Amino acid sequence: MIGGAKKQTDLAQSCENARKYSRDHAERFRHELHELLRIPSLSGDAERAGDVKRAAEWLAAHLHALGLQSARVMPTAGHPVVYAEWTGAGPDKPTVLVYGHYDVVPAEMEDGWDTPPFEPVEKNGKIYARGATDDKGQLFIHVKALESYLEVSDGAPVNVKFLLEGEEEISSPNLAPFIKEHLNLLKSNVCVISDSSMRRIEDPAITHSLRGMTYMQIELQGPKEDLHSGFWGGATHNPALALVEILSKLYNPDNSIAVPGFYDDVVPLTQEEREMVAKTDISEEQFKEVTGVPATWGDKQYTIRERVSARPTLDINGLWSGYSGPGPKTIIPAKAGAKLSSRLVANQDPDKIFKLFKKHIESITPKTVKVNLSLVTKGKPALIPFHLPEMQAASRAYEKGWGHKPVFTRGGGSIPIVADIYDMMKIPVVMMGYGLDSDGLHAPNEHYSIEMFHRGIETAIVYLEELAQLPRGR
Amino acid sequence: MIGGAKKQTDLAQSCENARKYSRDHAERFRHELHELLRIPSLSGDAERAGDVKRAAEWLAAHLHALGLQSARVMPTAGHPVVYAEWTGAGPDKPTVLVYGHYDVVPAEMEDGWDTPPFEPVEKNGKIYARGATDDKGQLFIHVKALESYLEVSDGAPVNVKFLLEGEEEISSPNLAPFIKEHLNLLKSNVCVISDSSMRRIEDPAITHSLRGMTYMQIELQGPKEDLHSGFWGGATHNPALALVEILSKLYNPDNSIAVPGFYDDVVPLTQEEREMVAKTDISEEQFKEVTGVPATWGDKQYTIRERVSARPTLDINGLWSGYSGPGPKTIIPAKAGAKLSSRLVANQDPDKIFKLFKKHIESITPKTVKVNLSLVTKGKPALIPFHLPEMQAASRAYEKGWGHKPVFTRGGGSIPIVADIYDMMKIPVVMMGYGLDSDGLHAPNEHYSIEMFHRGIETAIVYLEELAQLPRGR
Repeated sequence: MIGGAKKQTDLAQSCENARKYSRDHAERFRHELHELLRIPSLSGDAERAGDVKRAAEWLAAHLHALGLQSARVMPTAGHPVVYAEWTGAGPDKPTVLVYGHYDVVPAEMEDGWDTPPFEPVEKNGKIYARGATDDKGQLFIHVKALESYLEVSDGAPVNVKFLLEGEEEISSPNLAPFIKEHLNLLKSNVCVISDSSMRRIEDPAITHSLRGMTYMQIELQGPKEDLHSGFWGGATHNPALALVEILSKLYNPDNSIAVPGFYDDVVPLTQEEREMVAKTDISEEQFKEVTGVPATWGDKQYTIRERVSARPTLDINGLWSGYSGPGPKTIIPAKAGAKLSSRLVANQDPDKIFKLFKKHIESITPKTVKVNLSLVTKGKPALIPFHLPEMQAASRAYEKGWGHKPVFTRGGGSIPIVADIYDMMKIPVVMMGYGLDSDGLHAPNEHYSIEMFHRGIETAIVYLEELAQLPRGR
Repeated sequence: MIGGAKKQTDLAQSCENARKYSRDHAERFRHELHELLRIPSLSGDAERAGDVKRAAEWLAAHLHALGLQSARVMPTAGHPVVYAEWTGAGPDKPTVLVYGHYDVVPAEMEDGWDTPPFEPVEKNGKIYARGATDDKGQLFIHVKALESYLEVSDGAPVNVKFLLEGEEEISSPNLAPFIKEHLNLLKSNVCVISDSSMRRIEDPAITHSLRGMTYMQIELQGPKEDLHSGFWGGATHNPALALVEILSKLYNPDNSIAVPGFYDDVVPLTQEEREMVAKTDISEEQFKEVTGVPATWGDKQYTIRERVSARPTLDINGLWSGYSGPGPKTIIPAKAGAKLSSRLVANQDPDKIFKLFKKHIESITPKTVKVNLSLVTKGKPALIPFHLPEMQAASRAYEKGWGHKPVFTRGGGSIPIVADIYDMMKIPVVMMGYGLDSDGLHAPNEHYSIEMFHRGIETAIVYLEELAQLPRGR
């Protein structure tokens, strides 16, 4: 017991020292981040492939300079991955895998930037630059947290591995294959991702679930070409009508989804989870104010927050047929189509859901039109139980490092890599987002709060200490 | 009785003489038509306004040269009307009003013409030129029919007035006001229009009804701007979904229209009319072959031909919402809209139908979205009973002048001016189309069969004789 207590005291002291170091070197940390932000690492622009590589090399060199001799740029079929590890805590200590991405989305002055997007500027307590919050600033938090430990003691309380990709903004086409190929290298006990945001600085949140997706396209064809509605109207099943009939039949009167078997694999919400979700529920009035809708909608058996995060959905993302210009055009369109996407929750399988849709849509399509349903893209849902020790450790880290106890929330969006890591590596994925909803990611004048950056580093430092104290051998 | 018989003999002889004259001067008639076809009277092209006027002046001069001193170009707010009258038959004889249009749609060599569209060429028994069948060739038939009478006897057996407009191809915006202003000048007993076509030269047809139209646009708005479907999906009524729900509710399960009151004013089909329609019915197989649809559709209480001509319809002419480009875009669209048009039959009123749609759509729109239904354009239906003497006279004229007995058909399309003349002048409108479906109107290489042109002139000559024999004072 005494040994255990001493160990804890050492850990606590080491953690305190690291936090102090991070505060003492705050300005330098930011200036280093500025260097990374200056590299226009646009993953979606083939002409910027050299810059993407330069950002990878900058990160590998930076990690190497911190003493991580393993730091290296590893090729993929697309942009490279930066890998680095610090295993000085030893094999009896847990290993945390830090995932982040160093690529960014496009930014041009003409889009409405006040300052050049790749020339970082600090003003009003914020760093303005493309990638400041998404995700260079947030991934750098973990680099600086490790540095702070390395500089003030014999090292960090746990082993740390970095997996930094350059293709997140183009849907990570090569990351899952990379992980699969390097499962042994990446072997860890927990993965932490900081690539999300909270509403207010006082309301930190840990996202413990994300929705998956089955994105489909339906196309109908009736006549071989557009027909004159005067000559053929009345005996021709208008494909636009056939489409609206089919789409309207995909929902039940209570706004639930009418595809047989759709809900079969959904993990029911427990009372405990519903209570957790209730902490972040949004009122009808708030929802209306933010979105501008005249009234909310959905399955009344669930609260608004549950509907937008913990329940699967079906949305029509696009609809097209015939003529949409000004004035009249009296045609019966030959074709009609729609984009349809279903957000999935654990344990729905995107491929199975697609098959259910295909079967159902084909069964309700009348013989007056031809139908084709195709799969556009898909992603698995992820649900990390919030009672896992690694999740609870993250909660304590926020309380100590941030000063506010976080809530566990379900995210309504989809980050397929979370499910991929969870499934392939069989480890909890903890989403400790250090951004703010108002950071303007993907928009002009993206910025990152300097206070968030530094609070993030201290919280990341505390999280490593918390992880070190978890019972082993689970 | 003897006097009556003598009169008829004179009439018959005069008619025969006129027919012979028309055959003797066939080539000259066509060469005169060529002159008119050479004028590019494009009503939709502001730069061609001078040519439109030139065509009007050519026609007025031509009619004047035939002895119609009343022939003149009359201004409207747009392109002018050509008016001329021959009243030599005397006030105790009927007066026939010939409506036609001398304007044409655009034509350029690049569209695929084999010869210049405004340099008429005769080959393979056809005259190739823009406007050859639509409608210069067909209106010229009536000019030459009158000329034939004037040259071989004291005149025509009935009075003839010409109302030739220059804006038919741009929806006749100034014709109804012109008629209203000159009701007294135009006063007639019957109106004849040759601006339609038959399937085969052996199958002449008299169109005795046309459908009207209420053309609407529906627009829905949900959120103030497109939303991220991951963050808001499940509690937001997707406007595209709301639209498909509303549109699908406009139809009953039997494919009839579900708007309350929609059928209230429809004049039921009599057994006699159904028998007439049956003569031109189209089989499921024919319909599928021509249109390419996998199967026919509609209200099974009616035959296919009835559905496309004698029954009102509702078609979706266009549909739009959100994203329709390649790949996925995970939005909840802010807006969704559709173009909707209802073909109407006698005695449905387009304004009343619009009000019924507006009331019904507003009543079924959920409070989760805002709806706006606007009227795009409208036109009244027309139904001219085929047992009217003027219609039966037209039937006999085809039998004698053409050599084939025509059928009375209902047209599924809309020519609003027919209903306007019928309503404003309270006279039957007889649609004696002398075109062929294969003439290529509005397309490259528009042409007119020389045989149709000359048969038309003889039939028009006979029709005047038939009209002269109708009992007066009805």
